[in-house]
Amino acid sequence: MQTLNVDLGERSYPIYIGDGLLTRPELLLPGLAQKKAAVVTNTTVAELYLDPLTAVLVKQGVEVVPVVLPDGEKYKNWETLNLIFDTLLSHRCERKTAVIALGGGVIGDLAGFAAAVYMRGVPFIQIPTTLLAQVDSSIGGKTAINHPQGKNLIGAFYQPKLVLADTATLNTLPERELCAGLAEVIKYGLIRDGAFFDWLERNMEKLLKHDSEALAYAIKRSCEIKAAVVAADERESGIRALLNLGHTFGHAIETGKGYGVWLHGEAIAAGTLLAARLSLRMGLIGETEVERITSLYRKAKLPTSAPDLGAKRYLQLMGLDKKVESGRIRFILLKKIGEAFITADIPEELVTATLSGIAANA
Amino acid sequence: MQTLNVDLGERSYPIYIGDGLLTRPELLLPGLAQKKAAVVTNTTVAELYLDPLTAVLVKQGVEVVPVVLPDGEKYKNWETLNLIFDTLLSHRCERKTAVIALGGGVIGDLAGFAAAVYMRGVPFIQIPTTLLAQVDSSIGGKTAINHPQGKNLIGAFYQPKLVLADTATLNTLPERELCAGLAEVIKYGLIRDGAFFDWLERNMEKLLKHDSEALAYAIKRSCEIKAAVVAADERESGIRALLNLGHTFGHAIETGKGYGVWLHGEAIAAGTLLAARLSLRMGLIGETEVERITSLYRKAKLPTSAPDLGAKRYLQLMGLDKKVESGRIRFILLKKIGEAFITADIPEELVTATLSGIAANA
Repeated sequence: MQTLNVDLGERSYPIYIGDGLLTRPELLLPGLAQKKAAVVTNTTVAELYLDPLTAVLVKQGVEVVPVVLPDGEKYKNWETLNLIFDTLLSHRCERKTAVIALGGGVIGDLAGFAAAVYMRGVPFIQIPTTLLAQVDSSIGGKTAINHPQGKNLIGAFYQPKLVLADTATLNTLPERELCAGLAEVIKYGLIRDGAFFDWLERNMEKLLKHDSEALAYAIKRSCEIKAAVVAADERESGIRALLNLGHTFGHAIETGKGYGVWLHGEAIAAGTLLAARLSLRMGLIGETEVERITSLYRKAKLPTSAPDLGAKRYLQLMGLDKKVESGRIRFILLKKIGEAFITADIPEELVTATLSGIAANA
Repeated sequence: MQTLNVDLGERSYPIYIGDGLLTRPELLLPGLAQKKAAVVTNTTVAELYLDPLTAVLVKQGVEVVPVVLPDGEKYKNWETLNLIFDTLLSHRCERKTAVIALGGGVIGDLAGFAAAVYMRGVPFIQIPTTLLAQVDSSIGGKTAINHPQGKNLIGAFYQPKLVLADTATLNTLPERELCAGLAEVIKYGLIRDGAFFDWLERNMEKLLKHDSEALAYAIKRSCEIKAAVVAADERESGIRALLNLGHTFGHAIETGKGYGVWLHGEAIAAGTLLAARLSLRMGLIGETEVERITSLYRKAKLPTSAPDLGAKRYLQLMGLDKKVESGRIRFILLKKIGEAFITADIPEELVTATLSGIAANA
């Protein structure tokens, strides 16, 4: 088992990564303030992992309140959040009753936001069961629900007491979702660690074949990079924005195509390619780098081009993105593979040209 | 003008108390991160103070987005919160756009919770226009909405950038609401400052006559006591619970009578009398103290007895209160006038006897 400490002062917490951690109660119990916990999950994950987790907790004398939600990003809304509140209230969950998120990013976001605002905040534990959640949404304290006008518009920064990333749960993950998770893994290489990007080029096939050693390394390295960035900037005022590489375009793609049509990781991959092409137009990187990135996405069975929504529609969709500051859109661009930076200093015509060039690059 | 600094480390903020502060832009502007702010208020307060505040801000080049909500505790719910989100989104408010609460406790709770979760948190400024809000809900960072199953069940701890308590706004406050605010003022004397309680006994008539000097002193002393308690215990794990004197019973009264039938301060006064009678049954204080408290409430035109809901109904209503810990109800009781303490160590029969004795004491 690997242990990583996310250093956030009094809100610091450990991430445990390894095979079969789901049924290791000695890791979970320190995160509980009383012998009662609500387990928030969805119908799909519940079938696979709710019983074993519940059995382990009950054996330790913990009262378990199951909260089984419908599966899907479209349920990441106020109505579903209210289902959680209703269940917590009807089971008399208190301020010390922990909320455990058992599932992917949607469950983590929903359960985390519920934990952040139920009685103004209760203890929260993450058990991410997808690669995406293990390397991304379980670290950094971001929780949220969607709003008809955009993704993650309502939420809170709320840190878990601990995160259990059980690599065994990835064996039941559909390949498409594993690949979507790899998009985030590749992102960490792109923004901060060229050597990790090289490693991914050499080991992508192993990852796709569920090689547990390779997966554990990729998750750990991803968590390390994200944890380091988050620790340096908990509230996303500065360098944490680097983690949003590909997200300004990516969110536009998700919204433009309709929530859930593209997986988040797929949209981020396509968005990152647009950011790379914009970096190319800015003269920051060369065709070789764009080709290496495209090629790694191809190996990872991820999109190698963005949907052609039209430049105008893209710009409109990006106008409401949270990364707008005093009317200007900030972009995360690449200086090289392994180094991203933030800038609001981009001629609009280059953005438009990049978006207009999608068809040509597809 | 009086200035008080609430010391919460990096979340510290100032409270300004005085006559006519609403139109002093030099106090407000340091709380804005950009020249744009949403002013959340209700129809009643908007008629009195929205125009002057807007004029002052616009003159300083600040774009003002007004959000005028219906007036009343019954609107402190998700639907109204969503009205705020919709307005913020349609006016493209960003992460740096401040939310200003202009109104009483309901507006402060709604606007504060909206600020806490809109885009995961935007700058927040309080301009409380009722005595209750000036001495209570504008300090301490508590924000929330109600849930059909109870008050303030969904919310967040979220600190404002600054608080402006303009005593001139109390001149338009209905007497009943002024008195409800005095219940909280009296509470501060009861829990921490016997000399302040003495002062209130001597000056209650002045306060009811809107003597501005007396009001300013009462607000300042109340804010000081609350700020000191909150600074010592921001997240309500320990002594902050003292501020809940009368609230366990009081919330039961509010819920039992139906939201809005009793004003919060009225319910807290009645709840505090129950806490005093329970303290009497525990042998902690004497009849003299109970009589002094009752008498001060009488002077302040506040209830001098609790509604007789029946002991069983009270216990049921208190079972879902947030101050429950591992199934036991914690009470805030009085050792003397000027000293409250927290205990979960109360024989249930004394609680039942206190509740059953309501009719006899009325």
